[in-house]
Amino acid sequence: MKKYLAEFIGSAALVIIGCGAITLGGLGGALGSGQPLASLAILPIGLAFGLAVTAMAYGIGPVSGCHINPAVTVGAWVAGRMPTSEVPGYIIAQFLGAIVGAAILYVTLTGKTGGYDVATAGLGQTGWSGYSMTSAIIAEFVATFLFVVVILGATSKAGATPVAGLAIGLTLAILHLAFVPVSGNSLNPSRSFGPALFVGGTAFAQVWMFLIVPTLAGAVAGALFKSKTLEA
Amino acid sequence: MKKYLAEFIGSAALVIIGCGAITLGGLGGALGSGQPLASLAILPIGLAFGLAVTAMAYGIGPVSGCHINPAVTVGAWVAGRMPTSEVPGYIIAQFLGAIVGAAILYVTLTGKTGGYDVATAGLGQTGWSGYSMTSAIIAEFVATFLFVVVILGATSKAGATPVAGLAIGLTLAILHLAFVPVSGNSLNPSRSFGPALFVGGTAFAQVWMFLIVPTLAGAVAGALFKSKTLEA
Amino acid sequence: MKKYLAEFIGSAALVIIGCGAITLGGLGGALGSGQPLASLAILPIGLAFGLAVTAMAYGIGPVSGCHINPAVTVGAWVAGRMPTSEVPGYIIAQFLGAIVGAAILYVTLTGKTGGYDVATAGLGQTGWSGYSMTSAIIAEFVATFLFVVVILGATSKAGATPVAGLAIGLTLAILHLAFVPVSGNSLNPSRSFGPALFVGGTAFAQVWMFLIVPTLAGAVAGALFKSKTLEA
Amino acid sequence: MKKYLAEFIGSAALVIIGCGAITLGGLGGALGSGQPLASLAILPIGLAFGLAVTAMAYGIGPVSGCHINPAVTVGAWVAGRMPTSEVPGYIIAQFLGAIVGAAILYVTLTGKTGGYDVATAGLGQTGWSGYSMTSAIIAEFVATFLFVVVILGATSKAGATPVAGLAIGLTLAILHLAFVPVSGNSLNPSRSFGPALFVGGTAFAQVWMFLIVPTLAGAVAGALFKSKTLEA
Repeated sequence: MKKYLAEFIGSAALVIIGCGAITLGGLGGALGSGQPLASLAILPIGLAFGLAVTAMAYGIGPVSGCHINPAVTVGAWVAGRMPTSEVPGYIIAQFLGAIVGAAILYVTLTGKTGGYDVATAGLGQTGWSGYSMTSAIIAEFVATFLFVVVILGATSKAGATPVAGLAIGLTLAILHLAFVPVSGNSLNPSRSFGPALFVGGTAFAQVWMFLIVPTLAGAVAGALFKSKTLEA
Repeated sequence: MKKYLAEFIGSAALVIIGCGAITLGGLGGALGSGQPLASLAILPIGLAFGLAVTAMAYGIGPVSGCHINPAVTVGAWVAGRMPTSEVPGYIIAQFLGAIVGAAILYVTLTGKTGGYDVATAGLGQTGWSGYSMTSAIIAEFVATFLFVVVILGATSKAGATPVAGLAIGLTLAILHLAFVPVSGNSLNPSRSFGPALFVGGTAFAQVWMFLIVPTLAGAVAGALFKSKTLEA
Repeated sequence: MKKYLAEFIGSAALVIIGCGAITLGGLGGALGSGQPLASLAILPIGLAFGLAVTAMAYGIGPVSGCHINPAVTVGAWVAGRMPTSEVPGYIIAQFLGAIVGAAILYVTLTGKTGGYDVATAGLGQTGWSGYSMTSAIIAEFVATFLFVVVILGATSKAGATPVAGLAIGLTLAILHLAFVPVSGNSLNPSRSFGPALFVGGTAFAQVWMFLIVPTLAGAVAGALFKSKTLEA
Repeated sequence: MKKYLAEFIGSAALVIIGCGAITLGGLGGALGSGQPLASLAILPIGLAFGLAVTAMAYGIGPVSGCHINPAVTVGAWVAGRMPTSEVPGYIIAQFLGAIVGAAILYVTLTGKTGGYDVATAGLGQTGWSGYSMTSAIIAEFVATFLFVVVILGATSKAGATPVAGLAIGLTLAILHLAFVPVSGNSLNPSRSFGPALFVGGTAFAQVWMFLIVPTLAGAVAGALFKSKTLEA
């Protein structure tokens, strides 16, 4: 149970910090402002998500390994790095955590002077609009694949170092720099599901892609490590 | 006494660097400029506070463990990580350091060409205005809880690594990205008290919340580690 | 073959993330916007390239050492750090990876609403226009030399630490801050060749310099380590 | 001699990258643009200087320890961490490196389309104008003192870790966030002297302060470690 509690807290933290930077922090507004330099807002958004993973890797990683992402759990399972019996508990805890994280964020936002309309201002949800669905699928597949390769390489027998949590978080951060405009750079089914549940509309209608594609990409990366194709 | 001197210097450094970035560095003015991209200023402000903790973690950490925050000291004490006899000395040193840090900052600011009015331009103080007090309390509680979880996890027997100081500082940095607009993202009674003493007004009237809520959150996190609920 | 696959994936990742930040991420548009603060876009661009190297250093480094750059392979070879027999395979894998990475980026960009014209909007290619060719050659030589010195120093017998991948990536990141306006800060023949192949025009006409100068600089750095002039 | 060559290269790299970000990279222009968000340019400038120290800490640190700053050498010497016989060689190499670094930067800048006037556009020099000389002296003293405390703490017997180079560089980076507008945040006699030699005028007239104050602050920090006041 200790592991599931850790995954729950970590998954909530990811949504609170990452989606919180977009909404409470005002960075989503900056990114969508239409200003010539608006794209600069991708960096702090990416760092919020990426370093939230780093934070939790050191905070709860000693307990659960800090997956806080069903695609990572599937990748680690396919790679033979975790017992099958723990997979459902991890994934349930991740979804519950992301939902509770989104709820805490929602409640905090309602205290904004003048109010906050989640339906229009959002909750840091993911989705595609400026790019085709095909591009969004490529983005989520490629980004999640690379992300899980870094996770499995940085925690492999030959490659494990105390720096893994930093390297993994910074990888997630910079993937945002390329892919936020394409798909929102989720790479994480629960991180997409939590906010989408509160926002509804397009975010919820598109959430299926974020449940399927990152999970598949995580499994492919896991298979490359299981087969020792990418492991020393 | 060596430990208390270290905590004093570290607490002063946190205020000088963090609140210095806001005031001397002009980042507070950028953040409050009303420009569409003003929220971008949260990143350097967050890095100033967060990496000041990292700096001190490696600079004075070998001597005192670098709490430089009464909420962290209370969390560590509740978790059973420090002797009760040292708690008062740590906390007194932290408050004195934050006050002296604010004073050094104040003196430096008075040398500005054209003068500097602390009452209007501030000293990097914390508080709430754009969000309700309830939201500010949620923000300080959630952020401090997560911060102290990272601190206690990253320095636990199972999780301690040489990277802890970096992970902890980066955690504090990104919590700013979400919570600065809500409460100023203090998480630290002495960091709020020092500047408030010089600024007065609303900053001082609201300082009670920053004395109570982060301390409580630190204690709750500490209890989860003491009870082995979040520790391997 | 495992090593060559790793170099292939890593080299593709570098182009996808780095050149993706410029194109998909909109940071190239910000940098070339002519706004007074446009130069701020160099930081996220530099972090995208630099931390992509860090990501791959921990993801595929355990397998191949993560050169993902012919100039680094030549530097390591001159320094006596890798067998001659592996040099051609590494370099071929790096060029193939960069080309495939550019192709994946190209396909993703074509899904942009309203279309994307690679000939005018580019693919994150390198080149010089605001500075003379001489300045561009100095920039590429100096930057690659310093980059390879950090790589060889941080992985030397006396200096190797688990932090090497982070230090190396951050070095590449900040070299961008100085040299992007001069030459695009390539330091990497394959990273320049892949996008130039798709963009053609000036990018392809200038690509010879990026094949020669960084390779030469890498060799000079390698020689300083081989001769123990810069190695403890 | 190997150590002095390392210090020479490292000191040149610091000026090339840091002052290069200001001049070649256009960040000095952004910072001085008078735009409401101009202060955002302090972050990339700070990272350029700070992470240049990190880069060199891992690149040449295994050979010389990577002081690349006379104030650090004096601090280390007062702390009893280096033999007196090496002090002159270190300091001479640092000044020569900074001068050659400034020269390389100068030559590269002259290739700018439309030319580059060093007398008006500068070479990333330090100095005070928006704050009084007293404030500048406080800034340089406080910042250098904290910087050298981090250096000596992070490399002390009780505190040495492989992360030291990162922590030290990030400390230098964030000190810029507070102190650039006050004094330019030099903390380093040779880093100020090199560019001032080429720029002349006010930069050279004020360079005496940057030779004296940081050196004094380094010595005070060194004395606190020598006396075991700040060392475990």
